[in-house]
Amino acid sequence: MSVTVVGSIAFDAVTTPLGSRERMLGGSAVHFSLAASFFDAVHVVGPVGDDFGAAEYAVLRARGVNTEDIEHVPGGRTFFWRGEYGWDLNERETLDTQLNVFADFEPKLSEASRAADVLFLANIQPDLQRQVRAQCAAARFVALDSMDLWIETARDSLIETIAQVDCLLLNDSELRQLTREPSFVRAARTVLDWGPRVIIAKQGEYGAAMFTAEGFFALPAFPLHTVVDPTGAGDSFAGGFMGYVAANPDNELDHEVLRRAMAYGTALASFNVEEFGVERVARLTNQEITARVAELQRITRFIEKPIALRE
Amino acid sequence: MSVTVVGSIAFDAVTTPLGSRERMLGGSAVHFSLAASFFDAVHVVGPVGDDFGAAEYAVLRARGVNTEDIEHVPGGRTFFWRGEYGWDLNERETLDTQLNVFADFEPKLSEASRAADVLFLANIQPDLQRQVRAQCAAARFVALDSMDLWIETARDSLIETIAQVDCLLLNDSELRQLTREPSFVRAARTVLDWGPRVIIAKQGEYGAAMFTAEGFFALPAFPLHTVVDPTGAGDSFAGGFMGYVAANPDNELDHEVLRRAMAYGTALASFNVEEFGVERVARLTNQEITARVAELQRITRFIEKPIALRE
Repeated sequence: MSVTVVGSIAFDAVTTPLGSRERMLGGSAVHFSLAASFFDAVHVVGPVGDDFGAAEYAVLRARGVNTEDIEHVPGGRTFFWRGEYGWDLNERETLDTQLNVFADFEPKLSEASRAADVLFLANIQPDLQRQVRAQCAAARFVALDSMDLWIETARDSLIETIAQVDCLLLNDSELRQLTREPSFVRAARTVLDWGPRVIIAKQGEYGAAMFTAEGFFALPAFPLHTVVDPTGAGDSFAGGFMGYVAANPDNELDHEVLRRAMAYGTALASFNVEEFGVERVARLTNQEITARVAELQRITRFIEKPIALRE
Repeated sequence: MSVTVVGSIAFDAVTTPLGSRERMLGGSAVHFSLAASFFDAVHVVGPVGDDFGAAEYAVLRARGVNTEDIEHVPGGRTFFWRGEYGWDLNERETLDTQLNVFADFEPKLSEASRAADVLFLANIQPDLQRQVRAQCAAARFVALDSMDLWIETARDSLIETIAQVDCLLLNDSELRQLTREPSFVRAARTVLDWGPRVIIAKQGEYGAAMFTAEGFFALPAFPLHTVVDPTGAGDSFAGGFMGYVAANPDNELDHEVLRRAMAYGTALASFNVEEFGVERVARLTNQEITARVAELQRITRFIEKPIALRE
């Protein structure tokens, strides 16, 4: 069993109130891969330029990520993003985006990547996502992320692609924008009608909510004293979530398994934001993950006791 | 045992994408009273004008709320608020505020109100809150709400008042503004140092988070297909929360009781927003509350199962 992810591989320059990094490994496919690597074999598919070197490959390989489908474009430069977070970490400003080799990216999947049991279509142009989806016919669970740009410029194509996946994973505000529905429940029901059977709204510091035919489930973000860098939190969540799904091949993919997958996604996202870029997840241990999921269960559970209300 | 609340009694004019009301019963003390009335005897303290009539008293009395400390100011008019919500119900615009009799409000508590077991200081000027606090020396649990206006204009007085209560219940963004701390965990630790032992951040559609010496707890808002009118949700939450605390006089007020209180607060807030103003809560039943808390438990629980992570 294995997980394939197709998306961006990047260098990020990030400033937050707690510091900055001028050039660090990032990109949706990278954050996803590292998070998912704790659960199953991962194949990462995405383009890089000449500036992507041994040090970057080493980070992925140290976690056992298969990098054969990282496409090196000779003479090109790797996708670059520069952003700054305000004191309120929900406020993020993009200062520079250089698509570079990502601009002409056409995903090429090896046979091993195509054979994935679980596929994550990270945020890329929806036509390309559909093309990748068609190549992975054997995948038993496929999820898709997207962004406001594609909702605004390629909504029809995006909805066509969404119809072909099992799970839509989107930022809260983008889910509203996409469905034109004000509440999560209404938005999720709209998307269920399009095809997917699992809808997840990423709510940033508030956590994540899920909707399936069996109903609603939500988890808060794991409470941290200090969030250093939110970049990649959503993709780390997706990596933990999809990794957990991949690691459960014998189970029926029922609502209970998906709830636990949400918990692992929440745990991975929380580690990701504790330090800059991939620094924390790159040296994360299985024991730390297991302990955090147990703690998450403890801090979200209440035991109902019948009480006599007034007549 | 009984609950006393001191705060605003109002007429609200509200427009939401789903309709409007030109004049309906509202105000923090009213929403709180109705929610708390399902749990214990409630005394409501606040000023009204000549326009506050039998119909309004009847709504409160039908739920058994003691209205003896509603102060009628002859020749005066009742507090009036007009607001409009956008398609995104988090966006609220105040179009008109007429303080009227509320401008010169000096809380006068009867002996019965002063004897309260549980006291809620709804959002009024912090000097007045402290004055009321001093009159209710016997209360075993006192909570306080506030708003950006008092954080900006009376921060020192507000912090002095906070030091004298058990629980601070504040909007998420106002808690950050008050403490000048970016994360809930840091903000809550700051407030714990000031005196209270329970800090609750109201997060609107995302639910509520609590912090005590025993740690963190969070619940999502109850998922609704349609939210008709968010006005009073926070005060209904407070009413459910404080009502549950009041109804548990024999228990140690431990973290488990407070968690359940959060669940009842969440349930009451969710009913409140299903219709305009107090319409839904005014005809709510005990059975509906109990069922919703049970459902809330079901949709927030995941059962951890150990999983073999990759070595």
